[in-house]
Amino acid sequence: MSGWMKSVEFRDDALILLDQTKLPEETVFLRLSTSEEVWHAIRSLQVRGAPAIGMSAAYGLYLGLRHADEGNTDAFFAQLEEQVTYLSSARPTAVNLFWALERLRNRAYHEREKGAGVAAIKRVLLEEARRIQQEDEQVCRKIGEHALTLLSDGMGILTHCNPGSLATAKYGTATAPFYLAKERGWNLKVYAGETRPVLQGARLTAWELQQAGIDVTLICDNMAAAVMANGWVQSVIVGTDRVAANGDVANKIGTYGLAVLAKAHGIPFYVAAPLSSVDLNTATGKGIPIEERPAEEVTHGFGKRTAPEGVRVYNPAFDVTPHTFVTAIVTEKGVVRPDPDGGYRESLRRLFATPVF
Amino acid sequence: MSGWMKSVEFRDDALILLDQTKLPEETVFLRLSTSEEVWHAIRSLQVRGAPAIGMSAAYGLYLGLRHADEGNTDAFFAQLEEQVTYLSSARPTAVNLFWALERLRNRAYHEREKGAGVAAIKRVLLEEARRIQQEDEQVCRKIGEHALTLLSDGMGILTHCNPGSLATAKYGTATAPFYLAKERGWNLKVYAGETRPVLQGARLTAWELQQAGIDVTLICDNMAAAVMANGWVQSVIVGTDRVAANGDVANKIGTYGLAVLAKAHGIPFYVAAPLSSVDLNTATGKGIPIEERPAEEVTHGFGKRTAPEGVRVYNPAFDVTPHTFVTAIVTEKGVVRPDPDGGYRESLRRLFATPVF
Repeated sequence: MSGWMKSVEFRDDALILLDQTKLPEETVFLRLSTSEEVWHAIRSLQVRGAPAIGMSAAYGLYLGLRHADEGNTDAFFAQLEEQVTYLSSARPTAVNLFWALERLRNRAYHEREKGAGVAAIKRVLLEEARRIQQEDEQVCRKIGEHALTLLSDGMGILTHCNPGSLATAKYGTATAPFYLAKERGWNLKVYAGETRPVLQGARLTAWELQQAGIDVTLICDNMAAAVMANGWVQSVIVGTDRVAANGDVANKIGTYGLAVLAKAHGIPFYVAAPLSSVDLNTATGKGIPIEERPAEEVTHGFGKRTAPEGVRVYNPAFDVTPHTFVTAIVTEKGVVRPDPDGGYRESLRRLFATPVF
Repeated sequence: MSGWMKSVEFRDDALILLDQTKLPEETVFLRLSTSEEVWHAIRSLQVRGAPAIGMSAAYGLYLGLRHADEGNTDAFFAQLEEQVTYLSSARPTAVNLFWALERLRNRAYHEREKGAGVAAIKRVLLEEARRIQQEDEQVCRKIGEHALTLLSDGMGILTHCNPGSLATAKYGTATAPFYLAKERGWNLKVYAGETRPVLQGARLTAWELQQAGIDVTLICDNMAAAVMANGWVQSVIVGTDRVAANGDVANKIGTYGLAVLAKAHGIPFYVAAPLSSVDLNTATGKGIPIEERPAEEVTHGFGKRTAPEGVRVYNPAFDVTPHTFVTAIVTEKGVVRPDPDGGYRESLRRLFATPVF
């Protein structure tokens, strides 16, 4: 994977983040040493992508606790609860955020039960955050390998937003098969939707695929239907911020429309989903809160006003694709096909019954 | 129609155009006195919208001929042919461009047959251009009245690009019912797709509807499916650059996707089409040339680079919506429904057999 750049790294007691809001014009790394700085980086999209948000929040939790008084375990756990609540509030849709924080939180309680003191628990929290990041890289590679079984050399593939290496520890989720295909010498032809309003497809996906020498063509989101009608696309593959227990998929706004278009054109629609984004506690997509973001992202998205002053704007960051539009969900444990009833309830539940690697 | 601004006007031997590339930030009027200036204004989208392009080209033809030698009729007609060819090359998709030029051309030959000299023919060309503009205002009002029979008070309606008063002499085509509904005291809730890459929906439609006090909400193009799934939209209505004889519709890129989404959500999809945009000489949408525009519109659309340097881009300005997705075509002569076979061949042909007003 040439030209690959680590977007999340923890070193010297600080979280080093590649500022994704500055790409592709500038490559700026942020050095964050408090949980408040991490919260702000998540909220402002300096770090984005469900897995990267999860990792960053995990490191943020450690940063929020590393100076805590080590003499009082109860006070430490009270502070831990506060920090978990605080960091959870940075963005509402990505379940990886809650998943990562919950994983660290559980680990902390577990260590206390085993008799560990605050100092030891702090070390364990950092260790767990690092483990999440290491696992994510393996998870993405596995997703890529499984996704590759659905694709073939020469295919045209449409993707949306940045389910890319920038959004993860490495490889990305939906982009992982593109990197692995490149390693195998396949020629995939990737179409990247620019992904208004924040243009993660144009700024990030097109950029990282181009850096890796992958054949990528940028289109505006509203060109996807024409590209499908032209016969240029044989698969759509996207990432996700949360998969509900029935297989409904929350992902970047525009995903649902692509799923409807794919179905109308007889093109399979795949979702690359690490298990950390599958939320069995949310029964259906109706239970996934959809973050609405400021109007300015739409009206001033490029440092310039592109809409009249004071115009009303609807700016949901995500949409929900009902499972009936999802051909398969690709996880690190394999390709999940719908249950006989067309849903994913049983097939997703089964995933959690067996170990990952 | 409060706050209405004439976007095309001919006075003092010059074409006065509201520069649509500068809106909504600046209101700049161009004064064009040569056909070259008009060609450039059409090509660079300073004037856009099929009817406005037609009118402007008609005035442009007059401007290209007004200084012609009046002593030599054959030389004048040779120059006329040259100018028609030249102005036709400004944009390939909008049939109104060819329609308007052809109308002036036919009128010139007709006058010559009646024995008119060059000086008289020049006067007649200007008169015919003015008539096209006057008729367009009536045509738009008629389209609005017919379209209103398809809508009702309180409805949510999605539109795309700027089929608005800026694109026509007045009222617009697809926006005409919004202005007439306002006159009747109805409350329509209009959703305007921003229409990447050139943002005619954000910059022009949202602006002109806001100026007129019409309830308008701006969305990114990729939010249309979510807005439909939310149940907020009961009709989609768009304009067109060319309707083929079978009812296939060429319109701004993104229209076809909206038509597919509307069908999937059981929402009627209407096309507002003056007869001047119906091209019986083009059998189907396959015969409509689709203009591809520079990559820079996608990568540098806002005075700022929003995609990596050198990335490949596909930037078609239009797409074709097959007639099977079109619920009805609204013309100045009434609402045209599909033939019994689902196409529009007979119903469109019939339209041309009877006088307009």
